[in-house]
Amino acid sequence: MVTKNQIKRIKSLHQKKYRKEYQLFIAEGVKVIQELLQSSFVLEHLYVTDTCDFGVPVDRITLVSAADLKKMSALTTTPNCLAVFHCLAQQPVDFSDWVVALDDIRDPGNLGTIIRLCDWFGIRHLVCSPETVDVYNPKVIQATMGSVSRVNIEYTDLPALLQGIEVPIYGTFLGGENIYEMGKIQPGVVVMGNEANGISKEIEQLVTRKITIPRFGDLQQTESLNVAMATSIVLSEFRRAVFSAP
Amino acid sequence: MVTKNQIKRIKSLHQKKYRKEYQLFIAEGVKVIQELLQSSFVLEHLYVTDTCDFGVPVDRITLVSAADLKKMSALTTTPNCLAVFHCLAQQPVDFSDWVVALDDIRDPGNLGTIIRLCDWFGIRHLVCSPETVDVYNPKVIQATMGSVSRVNIEYTDLPALLQGIEVPIYGTFLGGENIYEMGKIQPGVVVMGNEANGISKEIEQLVTRKITIPRFGDLQQTESLNVAMATSIVLSEFRRAVFSAP
Repeated sequence: MVTKNQIKRIKSLHQKKYRKEYQLFIAEGVKVIQELLQSSFVLEHLYVTDTCDFGVPVDRITLVSAADLKKMSALTTTPNCLAVFHCLAQQPVDFSDWVVALDDIRDPGNLGTIIRLCDWFGIRHLVCSPETVDVYNPKVIQATMGSVSRVNIEYTDLPALLQGIEVPIYGTFLGGENIYEMGKIQPGVVVMGNEANGISKEIEQLVTRKITIPRFGDLQQTESLNVAMATSIVLSEFRRAVFSAP
Repeated sequence: MVTKNQIKRIKSLHQKKYRKEYQLFIAEGVKVIQELLQSSFVLEHLYVTDTCDFGVPVDRITLVSAADLKKMSALTTTPNCLAVFHCLAQQPVDFSDWVVALDDIRDPGNLGTIIRLCDWFGIRHLVCSPETVDVYNPKVIQATMGSVSRVNIEYTDLPALLQGIEVPIYGTFLGGENIYEMGKIQPGVVVMGNEANGISKEIEQLVTRKITIPRFGDLQQTESLNVAMATSIVLSEFRRAVFSAP
């Protein structure tokens, strides 16, 4: 059984304000919950509509009705389990390998996909401008499929951070270097810009190497790649260097 | 003014069965409609809640109430315009350049993204198994952002088609060749498999070159790239060959 107040508290975690206040977030569905349980995230409590085999101490599990779970859920189709986890403390960013920086990414699906890509390409640090969508937003958590547990994500004043580092800063712009013809490249920070406006003027001034993903289709078309697709191409291209090095 | 029957007819186009019967589909929002108007798609009729500047003959435009447009719309947030277009006739597939083949892609967002990627990488022909989600599904049309007008999409019996061609057939599998180390490659067909099950056994037997996108992160993790991300990496890698050719 859950009380009305408990449901209200869990529902409040749909909002960034309360996630920040309580330092808690929700994750839903067997797959995502299982991945987070096996990671460094610490479970606060698990709510299930049926007995289950998560290997969680019984005092951390509450059996609830489907109707109650639906009230707590942030998804359109409510799964049969919902977990509340503690947020992780941010770790210092290590610039000795590639780092991805997001300048104001607003779409939860895009952030979730970019976190999965960082995980795939072995990128351990992702820094985000304060305006970037919150990583603990339920839609982001669902989209990461557990990858969120393997990437350190820090929200910070991007210009201040980038001003103080000595590695190259790469950003995609029209008219930059062709990404397929850059030759040997030194690891650094890859900045990806906002869905509608791209990289902000302030960050652009800090970019030390402007790059372009060339289009192979009809050049007169205006439609561009979305930011998640562009990130996958840039990271693939930068990581492939280990195979093509002379 | 629209009649109840007209609304009913347009709403029926949310379903594949009726799109097939009428050979019509819907597109919503200024951006997508404008892109389709400038393409080879032929407009049947345009419904708008406000006077607009689409450059469409007045007898093809009907002013409707927001409430009526909402009834016709397939989107959660109804935009202020909805257009009905005629479906395009499929053109014969040309195997002289890269072709993408989809073996049972079910998610409309994935198909929409893959069509945008084909457009970006200048791939003119996309063939889909009959079980692949319908390209005229409203969610696919919205996700393509107009790219659908620049890619010829054919639904066909994939094994039959692939058996009859002489170009290489590439498919992603565990344990295939490292995609970053393939050297010179001959253009052919790139098969991308179902979200959950990958490439089917029947198609696997027809694949002439198995490829793998290596993971750079922690190899013990099971989570893989989603099919749209994998497609972007494969197409980028195959297209980049024109820059790195000796």
